[in-house]
Amino acid sequence: MAREITKRSEDYAQWYIDVVLKGDMADYSPVKGCMVIKPNGFGIWENIQRSLDRLFKETGHTNAYFPLFIPESFLTKEAEHVEGFAPECAVVTHAGGKELEERLVVRPTSETIIWAKYRDWISSYRDLPILINQWANVCRWEMRTRLFLRTTEFLWQEGHTAHATHEDAEEEAYRMVHVYRQFAEEYMAMPVIVGRKTQLEKFAGALHTYCIEAMMQDGRALQSGTSHHLGQNFAKAFDVKFQDRDKELKYVHATSWGVSTRLIGGMIMSHSDDNGMVVPPRLAPLPVVLVPIWRSEEEQERVLGKAREITRDWDPLFYKIDDRDQYKPGFKFNYWEVRGVPLRIELGPRDCDNNQVVAVRRDTGEKNILGMDNLRESVQKLLDEIQQDMFNAAKRRMDESTHTLDDYEEFKQRADRGGFFRVHWCGDEACERQFQEDTKSTIRCIPFDGEDEAGQCIVCGKPSERRVVVAQGY
Amino acid sequence: MAREITKRSEDYAQWYIDVVLKGDMADYSPVKGCMVIKPNGFGIWENIQRSLDRLFKETGHTNAYFPLFIPESFLTKEAEHVEGFAPECAVVTHAGGKELEERLVVRPTSETIIWAKYRDWISSYRDLPILINQWANVCRWEMRTRLFLRTTEFLWQEGHTAHATHEDAEEEAYRMVHVYRQFAEEYMAMPVIVGRKTQLEKFAGALHTYCIEAMMQDGRALQSGTSHHLGQNFAKAFDVKFQDRDKELKYVHATSWGVSTRLIGGMIMSHSDDNGMVVPPRLAPLPVVLVPIWRSEEEQERVLGKAREITRDWDPLFYKIDDRDQYKPGFKFNYWEVRGVPLRIELGPRDCDNNQVVAVRRDTGEKNILGMDNLRESVQKLLDEIQQDMFNAAKRRMDESTHTLDDYEEFKQRADRGGFFRVHWCGDEACERQFQEDTKSTIRCIPFDGEDEAGQCIVCGKPSERRVVVAQGY
Repeated sequence: MAREITKRSEDYAQWYIDVVLKGDMADYSPVKGCMVIKPNGFGIWENIQRSLDRLFKETGHTNAYFPLFIPESFLTKEAEHVEGFAPECAVVTHAGGKELEERLVVRPTSETIIWAKYRDWISSYRDLPILINQWANVCRWEMRTRLFLRTTEFLWQEGHTAHATHEDAEEEAYRMVHVYRQFAEEYMAMPVIVGRKTQLEKFAGALHTYCIEAMMQDGRALQSGTSHHLGQNFAKAFDVKFQDRDKELKYVHATSWGVSTRLIGGMIMSHSDDNGMVVPPRLAPLPVVLVPIWRSEEEQERVLGKAREITRDWDPLFYKIDDRDQYKPGFKFNYWEVRGVPLRIELGPRDCDNNQVVAVRRDTGEKNILGMDNLRESVQKLLDEIQQDMFNAAKRRMDESTHTLDDYEEFKQRADRGGFFRVHWCGDEACERQFQEDTKSTIRCIPFDGEDEAGQCIVCGKPSERRVVVAQGY
Repeated sequence: MAREITKRSEDYAQWYIDVVLKGDMADYSPVKGCMVIKPNGFGIWENIQRSLDRLFKETGHTNAYFPLFIPESFLTKEAEHVEGFAPECAVVTHAGGKELEERLVVRPTSETIIWAKYRDWISSYRDLPILINQWANVCRWEMRTRLFLRTTEFLWQEGHTAHATHEDAEEEAYRMVHVYRQFAEEYMAMPVIVGRKTQLEKFAGALHTYCIEAMMQDGRALQSGTSHHLGQNFAKAFDVKFQDRDKELKYVHATSWGVSTRLIGGMIMSHSDDNGMVVPPRLAPLPVVLVPIWRSEEEQERVLGKAREITRDWDPLFYKIDDRDQYKPGFKFNYWEVRGVPLRIELGPRDCDNNQVVAVRRDTGEKNILGMDNLRESVQKLLDEIQQDMFNAAKRRMDESTHTLDDYEEFKQRADRGGFFRVHWCGDEACERQFQEDTKSTIRCIPFDGEDEAGQCIVCGKPSERRVVVAQGY
């Protein structure tokens, strides 16, 4: 350990970088803007994929794969879309030793290539709905890298669905943002606010965008997942029509929705502490590490034997026995702590005598004595507790840092200190831009949980019907 | 079904295309050389990933992710490597609205970018071995597309390991080609020959390459997986040294190994028939489809109710009840047959009376009457039988089409008709090139199972110590 982790209270941004690098989560790459995801980070992405994928399939979706390259002309077919993405694209001009006739864009998102294909696949209402998801890498050019949070290439999933009616598409877009909420809360232990983006903040080409917004430990917001109702915009751009039951030809309705490796950044900033990574058990690549403690060769043989005996029936991917003999227990404790393993089991000669182990929680540091009988069950119970307690802690923090405010001067003073502010807004884009300029905050969403409440826009004083959530964001 | 599937005996190449397209496996893309993998095809890839990944993890590997883009200069650092790959590369010259200072290559394989990083990660023998795998898309420019078999972009996994000694690297390269063999045989039901490539056929930059070779139904060979011992070539190119236990600085030894979506093409050509796809149960996205049969609304209610009752505790991703009422049973039988679902369960009113179902095997068409009690178990038993029988059938076919030959004229006459030929070869590249010219065949491998046997090179008559496997390939 060449350098300690910077404390959150000293320099939050540096703390984040330290946690990521020391936790073996990711590394910088020789290519500007790109990152390397190291095994401890990628293991979390694998668990995110596995869990989310199951939720997608249970809601009727299947996976497919579309090409990485998109003809440049496709991008220009939907007007808002090209404006939003063209400036960020990487362009292939040469391939196979020749200059290409048409330049190819490395996908920044796949609506255009997918809708070009849906045109071939859809002709009747019988072909609908199409409920397809894709796990893929995408590319949006970035000048400065923030590991996981902002990189030129990132990994994500993008759902692309096609429907016969506006209502069906609306139901899908709404359903999927709630799948994201469920995933964030139940797997990532990360509470979120669910709502709708303003027109200024919506996806380029959507009718409207739903989102989940999480609060990081510094009080700033992280957009963690979005679900777009695209209306008939892409169907019109790519001329995708179907014959309905009434024999009429109609344009297809669309949604798209996605989450990315950015979630890992959100997970880190939700839970990790000044000692490094803290990973929720349900996403941990390694839920349990067992550190045997010995002072003599005889003891070593005894505790190692016991360690293997009590874990004999466990899934080998669920735990690891750290039997390295060139390192002392203290080094090993620290090694796994900084990497965020949720539960450390210590086993020494005395523990063997007493038919017990010591289980130390990563999230709280609390020590638990567990009997060796039914150990797998008591370990699972403890992991479930950790998962729930991590969610509760994050929820408490979010609630404590969410403020209802009606005075613009007060808001301007407080915005910089972080937190979510529930304020009245008249719906006017001018006021929205005013927030941004004065406080570097944005409207994160018009929350679904907000109640109708008559009030006055915090900027201009005009009437408002409900509060929006405003915060500084990542 | 606008068009039938061409028979294998009429036009094997067209049969393959028909099976892929009708089986909803894949589709052509608007970008030349690229393909779209449709849900039924991608579901197989997901199962390949899941099963292989488990085998990788059980042998100590973890996954990571490295950037899609490689600085063009990296590729040139290993002489053989650049010669092998540079002509096939797609090149990004513009990004973020500007021309790039250094052109970026879309990875054709990741040795160079990974070894540039390993340089940062390796300094001591304690850092070794590194056992990393990556699941990724790669790009090698192709002018003509053959779905799954040859596409510009394809999906694969690439293992990249770093070791302290030549022996460790050799052991790893050898271990992984056997993991591939196990996977091909146990999961894909596809028997393979395991061996070593000749120097002419090895990977660009390797000391030597191990491979598995499968036989397609037309008797041609498909290289299905390769494992390369890279020696110190990449360590030298990227200056990756470690301090060994003896305090000396040494170059690191490397392996890399990969399989790709090409495996799906191999699976199709190993098992499918004139009625379409046949998928081995262990890789089937949908192992079982249940088709209820009714003639009246009353019957419909009864059989659907029974269908749901007998599958109540089954994993929803394991089966589907085809309850579409706009289609007749015959249409549904055909619909699932062409897509390769291993087992179809038919359930009509009479079956309900008799407390039984009819289970129809996709591979043989054989009908089995199964009692409704313990149905899940008897279905699993049948699926296991199908898996084993499919392997046996493919193995028998491979054995029957493998010939031991000593006469070059005979070989020249027979090569075109397909099959594997075990012939003596002196080891001389001139003779190897002669085969290729005369018969369009290549040495697929020097098989591990070959016994020492004195003989004479089939081309030049010089002494040979063992037979090699020669065949026309894909």
